[in-house]
Formats: sequence, structure tokens, C-alpha cells
Amino acid sequence: MEDTLLMIPGPTTVPKRVLDAMAQPITNHRGPVYGEILDETTAMMSEVFQTDNKSYLLTGSGTSAMEAAIANIIEKNDKVINVVGGKFGQRLQQLTEVFGGESIEVTVPWGQAVNPEDVKNALEENDDVKAVTMIHNESSTAVVNPIEEVGKVVKDYEALFVVDTVSSLAGDTVKVDDYGLDICLSGSQKCIAAPPGMSAITIGDDAWNVIDKVDSPTYYLDLKKMRKMGDKQPPQTPYTPNVSLTYAMNEALSMVLEEGLDNRINRHHVGAEATRKAAEALGLSLFAREGDRSNTLTAINMPEGVSDGDLRGTMRNKYNIEIAGGQDHLSGNVFRIGHMGITGLQELAMTFTCLEMTLKEFGFEFDAGAGVAALQDVYMKNQ
Amino acid sequence: MEDTLLMIPGPTTVPKRVLDAMAQPITNHRGPVYGEILDETTAMMSEVFQTDNKSYLLTGSGTSAMEAAIANIIEKNDKVINVVGGKFGQRLQQLTEVFGGESIEVTVPWGQAVNPEDVKNALEENDDVKAVTMIHNESSTAVVNPIEEVGKVVKDYEALFVVDTVSSLAGDTVKVDDYGLDICLSGSQKCIAAPPGMSAITIGDDAWNVIDKVDSPTYYLDLKKMRKMGDKQPPQTPYTPNVSLTYAMNEALSMVLEEGLDNRINRHHVGAEATRKAAEALGLSLFAREGDRSNTLTAINMPEGVSDGDLRGTMRNKYNIEIAGGQDHLSGNVFRIGHMGITGLQELAMTFTCLEMTLKEFGFEFDAGAGVAALQDVYMKNQ
Repeated sequence: MEDTLLMIPGPTTVPKRVLDAMAQPITNHRGPVYGEILDETTAMMSEVFQTDNKSYLLTGSGTSAMEAAIANIIEKNDKVINVVGGKFGQRLQQLTEVFGGESIEVTVPWGQAVNPEDVKNALEENDDVKAVTMIHNESSTAVVNPIEEVGKVVKDYEALFVVDTVSSLAGDTVKVDDYGLDICLSGSQKCIAAPPGMSAITIGDDAWNVIDKVDSPTYYLDLKKMRKMGDKQPPQTPYTPNVSLTYAMNEALSMVLEEGLDNRINRHHVGAEATRKAAEALGLSLFAREGDRSNTLTAINMPEGVSDGDLRGTMRNKYNIEIAGGQDHLSGNVFRIGHMGITGLQELAMTFTCLEMTLKEFGFEFDAGAGVAALQDVYMKNQ
Repeated sequence: MEDTLLMIPGPTTVPKRVLDAMAQPITNHRGPVYGEILDETTAMMSEVFQTDNKSYLLTGSGTSAMEAAIANIIEKNDKVINVVGGKFGQRLQQLTEVFGGESIEVTVPWGQAVNPEDVKNALEENDDVKAVTMIHNESSTAVVNPIEEVGKVVKDYEALFVVDTVSSLAGDTVKVDDYGLDICLSGSQKCIAAPPGMSAITIGDDAWNVIDKVDSPTYYLDLKKMRKMGDKQPPQTPYTPNVSLTYAMNEALSMVLEEGLDNRINRHHVGAEATRKAAEALGLSLFAREGDRSNTLTAINMPEGVSDGDLRGTMRNKYNIEIAGGQDHLSGNVFRIGHMGITGLQELAMTFTCLEMTLKEFGFEFDAGAGVAALQDVYMKNQ
């Protein structure tokens, strides 16, 4: 195999069609051709977000959209409920604090989803909460959080509901309008399967009302300026956008909609189930609690008897397959397999075939082919 | 001509070699392959910046690097001398104010370069100036500012010297170490001729000493985190980088160094002279003051008798060539031709041939071919 197979939770393997679209000659970012592409791409983003709100593209990775979401709504001493159950939940909390907010943490054990009741209690116990922030799919722990249920809770309060769907959008169900997500953001390089370096954000009326009143130190990620330039006909961006990645996003989103959003999400669910079953068939255990497990990546407990470096190093050096390690205190304790974007049966077959061989090399015992058989079983039941 | 010829001051036409490099499959941004590419690319950036300091790549356009330069050194009420003689000088001033700094403006008439004496006077008149900010090549006015001379002035004071070389680096002389530039930043899409969406910054020891003491609201563009992750072996970025644009920058910078930095800068000087002479041969006048004119783009006063929309519209729609209009109060009053990156004689020949035809269409009189003849003359003298 010539090219490395990317089985990390983003960036994911990008289809040739998207890479080719990206390699088109550059166009004037202030001209009508770019305006039309931008218009079309943001409209597709809104379709994928399942919202009637406008979407905006940011030339920056997912973290830049996280910062845009926080910096534009938070002023000094604003109270924010941050749901924190992993590294990305922490990031929204850090951003809250960097921009002067007072964080009220709803602590969730790593590996578990938040209980909506805990958010409700935090809202009851604190007056004047400006926003509730949450990660839909916490890729550090491979957990999916119940945004629909939490949305129902937050709806009864003044607080904005800010949701990061960087590693779930187009791979798991995200209904911005139905779930009452006031601000929702995502990235290019996960389930959408474009290269990294671009992110997207969509903002509802209630959030705009807050943003219009906030005067916070933000410039490159100033949403008011994005709205102003985005409202031009044809639309523009405040600063020079990544033209090439706009082409790529346009093509990748076209592929999402050609496949059909529901089909694509279902395909991710099947990939997730197959991965979980295959891992368990090899005697491995899953990190996330049952029922809370992500549909776009799986975290597997590192089995005793092999180190992270040996396991992932063998996968990389011998088989040219990249899987991810754990983050922060999970480093060395779990490894993570992304099943995002265009990844499907074939990629999982390669991955589990080689994972079986790697585990055998380090002395693990199981029936050869057991993982692959489990994959086959799940895929055959879902044909 | 199939593809639009981009003669705007960035983004510029990107060589096929660079587009092809960009279209390579994505690699793991936390893996050794990416680390090696990043290491190589930032080393080439430092070579082009002519500095022994490390350089960092930012996944964001030039404005994100401008924000990084300001937000990481400015705290509330810090005094900053902003040299303002155009839109981008204003941007550094706006950033200063957004991040709580007190701006001391050295006002320069649009179309002129700053007089270093004016910077010296501002430094004499104000104690405790934290930084002097300046645009090397002000692309809104097509003026080049004397960074070497201003560098000599600032050296005698405590203030940091922060210079934006977005539209000059690799097209005009920038010697970060020799000129005493404490922070210098640039973009991917101008003279380096990569696609837009990435920027670069290099930081000297004095600037790091300031940055280490500053606690400002910055997260995505936090330079301390960039240094920490960049110091790993192999280096990483704090957040997911634009992997594809890193490939593109690597290839584009390789092309810069293959051509030779001095050769490339000289080629830009010749293109600038040819453009100025060709415009004047058609009876057009130049916006910027003689002696202050940019080597990477030229601003031409809009001749009476044709509108900006007609002139640039005809160039676009009839000849498939994009030239730029004026910005802010110069809108409608000037048009701008970029001669950046890989642009040379051939591109200028197309541009002036079609510009002559456009002007004839609107009733202007001059000897047909006069502009092209002026181009030829300059290029033949410089062969």
C-alpha cells in the first residue's frame, strides 16, 4: 500500500475527488467566482447542520471556531456552564476563562456521557448563566453526548447552547434547529472528509442578539465582521480565505449530500458497531461506557503486555496504518480508531487484519480472523 | 486562456508544482512524517526571513499572524507606536486597540513611505513604548516602507519592532536579523506563491522575553503554545494544522530557494520597474510617490473617462485577467496590479496587451503597443 491509511480521528483520508478539487488554480477571493463558490458551500454547510440559519467558513482549524464561539459571546465575569468530560470539553472551558468568563463546571467522568439532569441542576443553582457549552462527540474519550436531551433542558433558560460538533457532523445526527443549538461549530477534516485547516460555524438569532451586545477582544475571529461580509452579494470573508480549501469543502459537502446525510450517518453507525464488535472479538475492552459510545471513533483500552509505542509503531511502520493514542492522562492507556468520513468496511478490514497480526506478534491469543469475522457479521446484517 | 490570470496583489497564481504538492494524501499531523515536513518548512521560512530565529506556521491567513503578533505582546494600556499610511497599517492599529493597547499613531499620507525621523520623534516624545508596528509593503497604497532605517531608529529604544511583510517577503529585501525585526510575519499567498490560508511568524529573544510576561486573551494564536509544541522533536503545532498547505508551502519555499532569494527579489524589482514604465507609457500616472513605490505591486490612478467597474470588468470578462481595485477611500480612484510570486514578463505582457485594448475601447489614445514596448525595454536592459 503506497499511501498511509489514516485511521485516526481526523484528519481522515480525503477522497481523490476532493484533493483534485483543492488543486484547482486559485481565484480572486474578492471576485464573483469565489463568491458563488462560497455561497454554495455555506448553503451546503447549513444543510448538513440541518438549520435555516446561515453558516460561515473560517480559515482556521476547529479550535479557531471554538474560540470564535466563545470569544464573541463572553464578557468579563459572565457565567458559563462548561460540560467537561474530556480534552475538548476542557478546551471550551479554557477558552471561557481566557476570555474572562466564570466557568461553572459540570464534571463528567472521562468515558461517560453527561447526564442532562446535571446540566439542569447547574442551571437551577446559578442565575444569569450566559451559555452552556458542550462537545457533542468527545474524541478524547470516544463518547457521544446527548445534545438533543440537553437542548431540551437549556431551552427553558435564558442561556445560549453552544455545541461543538467537530468530530460528529456528517457522521452522527446533528439537528441544529430541532435541538435548539444556538451556536454550532464543526471542522473540515473529520466526517466531512476534507483536509484540515477550515472550520464552520452557524449562529441562531438568540446568539446574534448576544453577539451584537458583546465587545470582546476578537479580531480575526470576529463574527460580526463575518456576518457583514457574508451578507454581501456575492458573499465575501472579512480576511483572505483559504480559497483551495473552499473548493475542497465544496466538493466534500457535495459528496456528503450525494450520499445522503442520513445514509452517511447510518454508514458511520454501522462502522462504529463493527469496530466495537471486532475489538471485543479480539478480547479487547472498550474505554467508553456502553450506551455512551461514539459513532465516529472508538477508544480501546491498551491491553496489558504491549506498549502504546510498540502497538501503534508496528501498525505504522510495518503496515502503514495510522491509529491514534490516548490524550493527556489516557496517553498509553488507550488507543483510538477513527471510523469517519469515507472510511468503511474496506478500511476497517485492513485495519483489523493488521491489528490482529500486530497483537499476535506481541503474544496475544485469539482465533485468527476473529476481528475480521465480527466486522463481516455486522456489515452483512446491515446490507 | 482557460485559467484566470491573477494579477491582484495576492492571492497570486500558484505554480502547478505547488498545487500538485498540495493535493497529496493527508498525513497524521501528530506523526513523524508531518513533523519532518513541518521542520523542513519552518527552517526554509527562517532562511527566507533571513533569521537565525525559529519560524512558526499558523493555520490562518495573514491577519491571523498580525493578531498573533499584537495579542501576544500587548496588555491593557501598553503604549504602541503604530505607523499608519494605509489599510494594513490601520489593521495593526485596530488590533492594538482591540487588545487594550494605547495607540500612538505616526500618520503617513496614503501613497508615501514613513520618514524614519517621525518614528524617532514619537519614541522621544513617549516613555515606555512597548512596540513600534509597521507594514513593510503597504499593499493598499503600493508603497514600500524603509524597515532597515526604522530598524536602526528603534534599536536605540526598549520598544519591540513588529513588522508585517505579508506582501513583500520573498519579493523584496527582508533581513530580520540585520534589520532588528523583533517580530516579523508574512503570508503564504503573495510573493511565496502558495495558496492563501497559512501565515508565518518569526520571533526574536527580546520579543520572547515580553511574550513570556504577557497574559492576554489569546488561545488559537497563543505563541507560547506554538513555541512549546514547535520545540518537540519532531515539532508539532498546538492545534490541527492545515496539512495540505504545509505541503504547498514546503514546495513553494523550495522553489524560492531554488531560484535563489536574491534572484527572486531582483526579478520582482524588474517586474515592478517594467510595470511602472509600461503604465506611464500609456499616459497613466502612478499613485505612490516616486522613490516610495512597492516592488511587488503598483497602484495606478484611475484615468478620467472610465469607471473602475468598466475597466476591471472588461479585463475580467473579456480577457480573463483579474486586477485589483482600490481599498477604502481609494476605491474607484486607483487600480492595482500585482507583480508577485511567479509573475514575470509573460504575465505582464498579457496584462498590458489587454489593458491597452481595454483603454482603447474606452477612447483613450496612445501608440498601440507602447506599454508592451516599455516592458520589453526594461526586461531587455535587465537580461
